[in-house]
Amino acid sequence: MADKPRRPRAETPKGFRDYFGAEVTERKAMLDRIAGVYHRYGFDPLETSAVETVEALGKFLPDVDRPNEGVFAWQDEDADWLALRYDLTAPLARVAAQYRNDLPSPYRRYAMGPVWRNEKPGPGRFRQFYQCDADTVGSASVAADAEICAMLADALEEVGIPRGDYVVKVNNRKVLNGVMEVAGLAGDDKDAERGIVLRAIDKIDRLGPEGVRALLGEGRKDDSGDFTKGAGLSPDQAEVVMGFTTAKRDTGAATVARLRELVGTSVVGTEGIDELEGIAALLEAQGYGPDRIVLDPGVVRGLGYYTGPVYEAELTFEILDEKGRKRQFGSVAGGGRYDGLVKRFTGQDVPATGVSIGVDRLLAALRAKGRVGGDVAGPVVVTVMDRDRMADYMGMVGDLRQAGIRAEVYLGNPKNFGNQLKYADKRASPVAVIQGGDEAQKGTVILKDLILGAKIAESATLEEWKDRPAQVEVPRANLVAAVLKMLDQ
Amino acid sequence: MADKPRRPRAETPKGFRDYFGAEVTERKAMLDRIAGVYHRYGFDPLETSAVETVEALGKFLPDVDRPNEGVFAWQDEDADWLALRYDLTAPLARVAAQYRNDLPSPYRRYAMGPVWRNEKPGPGRFRQFYQCDADTVGSASVAADAEICAMLADALEEVGIPRGDYVVKVNNRKVLNGVMEVAGLAGDDKDAERGIVLRAIDKIDRLGPEGVRALLGEGRKDDSGDFTKGAGLSPDQAEVVMGFTTAKRDTGAATVARLRELVGTSVVGTEGIDELEGIAALLEAQGYGPDRIVLDPGVVRGLGYYTGPVYEAELTFEILDEKGRKRQFGSVAGGGRYDGLVKRFTGQDVPATGVSIGVDRLLAALRAKGRVGGDVAGPVVVTVMDRDRMADYMGMVGDLRQAGIRAEVYLGNPKNFGNQLKYADKRASPVAVIQGGDEAQKGTVILKDLILGAKIAESATLEEWKDRPAQVEVPRANLVAAVLKMLDQ
Repeated sequence: MADKPRRPRAETPKGFRDYFGAEVTERKAMLDRIAGVYHRYGFDPLETSAVETVEALGKFLPDVDRPNEGVFAWQDEDADWLALRYDLTAPLARVAAQYRNDLPSPYRRYAMGPVWRNEKPGPGRFRQFYQCDADTVGSASVAADAEICAMLADALEEVGIPRGDYVVKVNNRKVLNGVMEVAGLAGDDKDAERGIVLRAIDKIDRLGPEGVRALLGEGRKDDSGDFTKGAGLSPDQAEVVMGFTTAKRDTGAATVARLRELVGTSVVGTEGIDELEGIAALLEAQGYGPDRIVLDPGVVRGLGYYTGPVYEAELTFEILDEKGRKRQFGSVAGGGRYDGLVKRFTGQDVPATGVSIGVDRLLAALRAKGRVGGDVAGPVVVTVMDRDRMADYMGMVGDLRQAGIRAEVYLGNPKNFGNQLKYADKRASPVAVIQGGDEAQKGTVILKDLILGAKIAESATLEEWKDRPAQVEVPRANLVAAVLKMLDQ
Repeated sequence: MADKPRRPRAETPKGFRDYFGAEVTERKAMLDRIAGVYHRYGFDPLETSAVETVEALGKFLPDVDRPNEGVFAWQDEDADWLALRYDLTAPLARVAAQYRNDLPSPYRRYAMGPVWRNEKPGPGRFRQFYQCDADTVGSASVAADAEICAMLADALEEVGIPRGDYVVKVNNRKVLNGVMEVAGLAGDDKDAERGIVLRAIDKIDRLGPEGVRALLGEGRKDDSGDFTKGAGLSPDQAEVVMGFTTAKRDTGAATVARLRELVGTSVVGTEGIDELEGIAALLEAQGYGPDRIVLDPGVVRGLGYYTGPVYEAELTFEILDEKGRKRQFGSVAGGGRYDGLVKRFTGQDVPATGVSIGVDRLLAALRAKGRVGGDVAGPVVVTVMDRDRMADYMGMVGDLRQAGIRAEVYLGNPKNFGNQLKYADKRASPVAVIQGGDEAQKGTVILKDLILGAKIAESATLEEWKDRPAQVEVPRANLVAAVLKMLDQ
């Protein structure tokens, strides 16, 4: 006998997953609400293809330590390299360049959809996940940055994060650049050091000040013994940079005053602080006070391409982590100004700013707060007592659906009636409809209230439900009305 | 000087495209409506990842002449081959196998999203497109097939295809198999011939009866001179098969009678006809008559994996093709029973049936009929006369947005006021808000009715609009009320 071919494994590829039922509808409902906010702010939808040329995407993934990794790529029939998009910003830059003669300027668009990262999967870390972005391309005004921060606050409240449970932190890369200048890290030849400093500060929440200081100096050995090379700053230089990370004061004005001390006469630093003040003033005038949006020099954002204001939304309530320890939920969205991305294609300066919401993290936060969910209502299940009368049962669900009631006939093998009720249970069906031969002859149907039935089963007593029958027999003609009544209880 | 690196091209890869504004929202609105119908019928949402292992996907693309092509695939770091899904059925089969112990049975799910085909792009033919599917896995009952046909009719009407403008055609592969038996094409050794026959019949709309007959015989040379090898049937054999394609009669009963003549004593053929009769009876009982659903032996569906009932929705109204010739719009959805797909993984029989709607074609049909569209309302644009008073302008859009009005401040360079109005025009803005120094001092704003302005510009006379001012000056405090009034006119 010939070898039988091995059966294929029924598995998602490593790092990918499936989303079922409420997981899909809850995300969709959240995205619809965010889209509503983006729309009200004047942004238009854009959906680019999932596939881009590798050259159009460029290499802007946060993890610049591994510049050749991070994307899923392949060669097409013409030997061009194609890849799945790793975010929604790179495709936007391509679109802004490709259609620059046709699009309105500024071009304001929102986009939502999956992105793909070819990274090592881990717990809760997947290789396909959703982002939800809004960007203004073609505006150099800090009003564009301020607006995005305000819109981010509005979007969070719109999906169910109450004021006080989040804060939008604003900073400016130019201030950091001014600080680096003061620390003697200006100039093209210090590019690598500045990169290390940037990524070190970005990790302050995780590593703490000592960890960051180590990375500013010789380097840092982590718990596993792995050594990360540092920026090699002198203690004095490191002091200046560390001063920046702790420059936040109780009020925006005090923070600004402290930053002015730090950047001294640096032109770029002063420009950055002026921009921060401008953003704060615009937000203040619109009533977005420090209960919603604050200046925070601790925020730098890891991405290398930011050139000015950067912002991040953090959820401030505590959750229990996988080890049962309390911790702040943390960041769910971030963005900033990136004036160089479109220039890659056109050679012309095109200022741009925008935000990306981490959809899955925000959804997890809403779940942790009980703000989404509850199960999707299952369908009314019409059971099959007599398979020759399938047309009658289909007629029943037809009537129910016409009345807007979610309903279906049991379509498995009807022989075992217990299986039919088990199916109804698994579908979280609220009502089962039963019509055997006797009922058919009488022209009636039996309705089983499965929600009530489940409650009775739980409390193991009929006493408290005695006024409400778990099962009724009604004329077939009254099916719809009787089901509606049962659903209403 | 070193060579400057070439700038990347700002282009989508060949065969891919971007969707802007209303193209996105119209598709979304249509999918939401279809999802509503699928939900009411008791189907639950499922979203699988875009990426699958090549072995899980299998090779079930319609164009089996090129079995190694058709998908975008690459090797991951463990040398496993991964690929973008080419439809939503193969991932469903994988899910049904992977979670078979946890899912309800039958498992009824709907799915919508992009799929990818590595095919030669052409006009209107893209390598990424949307599908929108519903399937019942685990039901052998023809009631499941009948239900899908009824649901397909409901979905088409729900999105705006009126009754009479579409027809759902139903057939059964078993009948075709019976006909092949009669024609002497039974047996494993005739597999290739049967495949050719199947694909030939599937092309009858395009090639006509003569073209199909040629493919049943020696083969066919097309207009370009390319020769396609035929199934090599004798004239008698071809006659039997051709009889099948023209077996449709005026009523379902007459069609069934004709098919019984054709399949004679074939067991599988008779079984197929009995199933067709069962589906027709169930649909008839629910009021889905021949004005919506008909038996039509001309429908075979190209896919090799169908094992029983197959169905297809065609739009019957005429449109003009690219050469200005009238033609029927044609197929927008199709599906059928595929009892073997899950078995690939588990070795166990799992009967399944389902439909896939070609989202882009259906949307194109709705556009052709004027059933979607109208432009998305642009935002009210608050112009910038004095860039020092940006906070005032931001305050205005804040008030408008609070009232639910789509609004934005012009964020480009405000120096040239003409550019601001050009921008408002390009965004299809209904109202422009203007506040210069004089107005600011008086505490007023000027509202320009841009829709009225456009109408006046078109008709070149103010006469018919004289009772309606194209521009008003109102107190700043009345901004929202005055804009609402202008939008209402």
